[in-house]
Amino acid sequence: MPDKSDHKRPFRPRAPASRMQPGRGRPRGPRSDRHAPRDSDTPVILYGWHPVKMALENPQRQIRRLIVTENALRRLAEDGVTLPLEPEIVRPDAIATRLPPDAVHQGLYAEADPLPALTLDTVPARGLVLALDQVTDPHNVGAILRSAAAFACTAIVTTARHSPEATGVLAKSASGALEHVPFVTVQNLARALDALRQRGFLVVGLDSEGDSDLAATPLAEPLVLVLGAEGKGLRQLTRSLCDHVARLDLPGAIKSLNVSNAAALSLYVAASRLGLRLP
Amino acid sequence: MPDKSDHKRPFRPRAPASRMQPGRGRPRGPRSDRHAPRDSDTPVILYGWHPVKMALENPQRQIRRLIVTENALRRLAEDGVTLPLEPEIVRPDAIATRLPPDAVHQGLYAEADPLPALTLDTVPARGLVLALDQVTDPHNVGAILRSAAAFACTAIVTTARHSPEATGVLAKSASGALEHVPFVTVQNLARALDALRQRGFLVVGLDSEGDSDLAATPLAEPLVLVLGAEGKGLRQLTRSLCDHVARLDLPGAIKSLNVSNAAALSLYVAASRLGLRLP
Repeated sequence: MPDKSDHKRPFRPRAPASRMQPGRGRPRGPRSDRHAPRDSDTPVILYGWHPVKMALENPQRQIRRLIVTENALRRLAEDGVTLPLEPEIVRPDAIATRLPPDAVHQGLYAEADPLPALTLDTVPARGLVLALDQVTDPHNVGAILRSAAAFACTAIVTTARHSPEATGVLAKSASGALEHVPFVTVQNLARALDALRQRGFLVVGLDSEGDSDLAATPLAEPLVLVLGAEGKGLRQLTRSLCDHVARLDLPGAIKSLNVSNAAALSLYVAASRLGLRLP
Repeated sequence: MPDKSDHKRPFRPRAPASRMQPGRGRPRGPRSDRHAPRDSDTPVILYGWHPVKMALENPQRQIRRLIVTENALRRLAEDGVTLPLEPEIVRPDAIATRLPPDAVHQGLYAEADPLPALTLDTVPARGLVLALDQVTDPHNVGAILRSAAAFACTAIVTTARHSPEATGVLAKSASGALEHVPFVTVQNLARALDALRQRGFLVVGLDSEGDSDLAATPLAEPLVLVLGAEGKGLRQLTRSLCDHVARLDLPGAIKSLNVSNAAALSLYVAASRLGLRLP
């Protein structure tokens, strides 16, 4: 029940592991290696209209199993979605029992292979890349992924540890964006930022104690924006690898935003200033 | 356990009620009048560092009960916070048992009176007001409230029904913003928008099918920005009362944002264009 266990823990040092392994009957408890690369046998769980529909429309996504309600099947047909495999048609309750009690599945559930992993070397040296320094909450990371897709980011770089996995709640919050923005998982964010700098990326960290407002910070393509965890912000080593550390000037009484809100604003400012806003 | 029951249900017609009534022992189940004005006997539940600290610092907030850990008490003292009543000092577990299992309480828990209600007539006719058309998820509404405080909104208008209450999870997600931005709860949003228009407000709705990009839409103070529920968007009657319906142009493959991300971006664009950005 990842919605319950994964939910909102900005101050905990480790991201909780998803305990949802439908169809297996052995819940996975906390393990020291739970942020190790996913076992390729472990399916990615997708549910809800956008996550499942976009996965079905993504030729790179291998769907292993598709469970749908009659209504959802009709809606997919109306939208001209071609199914890559025979769906299992069930009543809504049969999907609900596979998911956390509060999951909004909209009659669609799929198990799929993880997408092919992108490595740091293959991230194109253009446009905008987002890096997350131990942002642990899967709802926030999902919303950030959705914004990254909305602002045409070429990749999101996250750490293998202290990051939620690209499945379940994260996939639902991302609303299909998982099919559009490649996740690059690295062991060491500092080394990753350094490697991107070597390839010509400008590295700009976001922090409420930043040196200048992002709107007034020199920006250039290719650009990496680095966001830290709520509460903790950027780690010292991460900061030291940034070309600039910028803040978002806010006129009101509260001086910081939810991390996904800060990400959306940073992407907007950066994309606007780099002239990336229009399609 | 409101985190579980309240969590992420953008497509459900009704907001779930909070079932948390600490110290009472009678969980409140769904009731037809659960969105009626709060019983003034029902305390607002605040937990976590920012929500409790800012409530303690707010002279308008009447605290009934304060439960803290020794560490948290020391931290409050270090920050020079004056306590309006004798705190109950407990071990962290004693706070955790009062809250959902995943709540990050940081050693602070308070029960308080609701803040004095602001009515529509008393909303100052200046600056920015945010109106929410049945945004039901308390995490999203909390994050929106936090952004509203960051962008110095003078009020947030919500409907009495189909909106989460200003307590618990919402207060936690708002990170103290509950003490800074007055909530105005109305029975009928359309009538409220009409009343604000009569008082000289420009009413601008946000919708992915809007007529123009918000950045290119004529804006003026005082301004109400109206946001609809995820999935459903603005209701037809709400749209009909807007002077303009604007969209947020996004360059990427995904054309909509999480509602709190859309709110943050809209506030940024509006505050910037109205010259409200700098403190």
